[in-house]
Amino acid sequence: MSAVAAAPGGELSYGVDIGGTKVLGLALDAAGRDVAEARVPTPGGPAAPGHEGEEVAAAVARVVEELDAATAMSDVPVGVGVPGMLDLEGRLRFSPNLPQGHRVSWRTLLEPHMAGRPFVVENDANMAALAELRLGAAKGARAAWMVTLGTGIGGGLILDGKVQVGAHGFAGEIGHMVVDPAGPPCPCGRHGCWERYASGAGLGLLARQAALAGNLPEVVARAGGDPEAVRGEDVTAAARAGDGGARRVLERVGWWVGFGLANLAAVVDPECFVLGGGLVGAGEALLESARQSFDELVEGGRARPTTRIVAAAFGERAGAVGAAVAARQGGLD
Amino acid sequence: MSAVAAAPGGELSYGVDIGGTKVLGLALDAAGRDVAEARVPTPGGPAAPGHEGEEVAAAVARVVEELDAATAMSDVPVGVGVPGMLDLEGRLRFSPNLPQGHRVSWRTLLEPHMAGRPFVVENDANMAALAELRLGAAKGARAAWMVTLGTGIGGGLILDGKVQVGAHGFAGEIGHMVVDPAGPPCPCGRHGCWERYASGAGLGLLARQAALAGNLPEVVARAGGDPEAVRGEDVTAAARAGDGGARRVLERVGWWVGFGLANLAAVVDPECFVLGGGLVGAGEALLESARQSFDELVEGGRARPTTRIVAAAFGERAGAVGAAVAARQGGLD
Repeated sequence: MSAVAAAPGGELSYGVDIGGTKVLGLALDAAGRDVAEARVPTPGGPAAPGHEGEEVAAAVARVVEELDAATAMSDVPVGVGVPGMLDLEGRLRFSPNLPQGHRVSWRTLLEPHMAGRPFVVENDANMAALAELRLGAAKGARAAWMVTLGTGIGGGLILDGKVQVGAHGFAGEIGHMVVDPAGPPCPCGRHGCWERYASGAGLGLLARQAALAGNLPEVVARAGGDPEAVRGEDVTAAARAGDGGARRVLERVGWWVGFGLANLAAVVDPECFVLGGGLVGAGEALLESARQSFDELVEGGRARPTTRIVAAAFGERAGAVGAAVAARQGGLD
Repeated sequence: MSAVAAAPGGELSYGVDIGGTKVLGLALDAAGRDVAEARVPTPGGPAAPGHEGEEVAAAVARVVEELDAATAMSDVPVGVGVPGMLDLEGRLRFSPNLPQGHRVSWRTLLEPHMAGRPFVVENDANMAALAELRLGAAKGARAAWMVTLGTGIGGGLILDGKVQVGAHGFAGEIGHMVVDPAGPPCPCGRHGCWERYASGAGLGLLARQAALAGNLPEVVARAGGDPEAVRGEDVTAAARAGDGGARRVLERVGWWVGFGLANLAAVVDPECFVLGGGLVGAGEALLESARQSFDELVEGGRARPTTRIVAAAFGERAGAVGAAVAARQGGLD
């Protein structure tokens, strides 16, 4: 958290992104610049029946308090990004990555913490899409996909120049597009969801398979010698250090990323894909491999105009930045 | 073709749908009623180099002439639906089902045949979506999918209350969403496209597999005794006559239909799916099986509001009806 005097760009708004491991808050000025930041760990574990989401909502409140302290204000509008299937009333219908916050209205949960200030609640990947659309890599786009490659995969659909939420608010649950009905089980209850292959979780899974087959000695050494303990971070670190085996695992994940993007292009046909989330930090090898497999797999191939695949401008902060933009404009539109 | 005196509903428009086997034309009055119909076989076989699409365009012209003769008019606006990846300039970039019309501009091809009358060219499934949106089963929808289950699978995306074509005109190429990278080869060049399983072609493939395994004696008898000669029509006829084996094949195809719809719901989240094309004529068994697998497979399951799955109001005529609507309004919007 950094202290701030007066916001030079005019009025402030706060964006809060509820992630699987942390709740991240940003104060943005009217020009879209960060003027303060706060973060607390996301309370985990199952909620007591009847108290779903309460601890997480309290963590959001703590982040807002810290931002208030940093900005010396108390009525700044707040946007909150929530992972999962948030309906149009702000109720979380289903969320593989926030099960402790299921079935409750996040508007109702957050209201007592907001002390009358304006606030909006939207899906986290839709917030990220809004950030990239207004201020980042999808600026001015009419049709684009925001794809967040984190532990899972989130998506935000931009069509007609705005973020589209679909009939019930659930558009962009692209990580749960099934790409192989005989594939590995997914926390969502199905098998072979795209996010089993092309996310941080997919990277870990592929890496452990390769490690158990004896193909990743360098990566296993980084994981303390136990192939079962290999994590995605070990692979990206080893690849950065020049390990060929690690690089091949990243390229394989990149292939799956491009595979899914080709499917999304068949369905919606965007002018560009903006890739965010922690996995994009794995670097250009993954992005390059995604571009190659996309070009190879997309229907029409070379007969098709180029569809750009670019890294998000705001990286892992896109969700919080977009939430602040939504707070300022009173929603996604 | 039927003759007509004066169109009671006011001004006419023509819709022409270029299918894999026939070119179908309809004259519609302002109330959306058919007042004349014409059809000619689609010229097949490869085009002479430099003459791509010319024979098919001449067939469209013949259909328009027949409609002119039936309506005793010569300046009625025409809409033409073309299968495949038609770009925003009317050029067919790629079309697994109309390879003889690749790489040419259908606006340029059709212009000399239109003698100065207004005409529009759009993708066939987008035309079908327009028909269902304005006059049929998706009337008034804000977010819906038109899914045409023919030899292949076409799609039309309705979002924000209008048919969306995406950045380059190719939105809705949903038949080429890959659902199993190790699946059977597709004429598009990839493997395991959804239309290999959930279309008329998929029905034929599954039926021949079952027939060769000795599981469809009734169907094989209808096909003249040769398991390799079994076609989708033999299955639907046998199922209608009460054959259990045929019914199970239809249910399997229905399972794949619901599987793909669950993927589409994850990506775009419509309020309803409108299913058209010849395969829907297979009847309620297929539709019921699609509904079941959709409910079972869609992310969120029962936590999700109901998404309706209904048969198209215009069946196989949706493309031509929509083309006539597009002709009247000057495009999809």
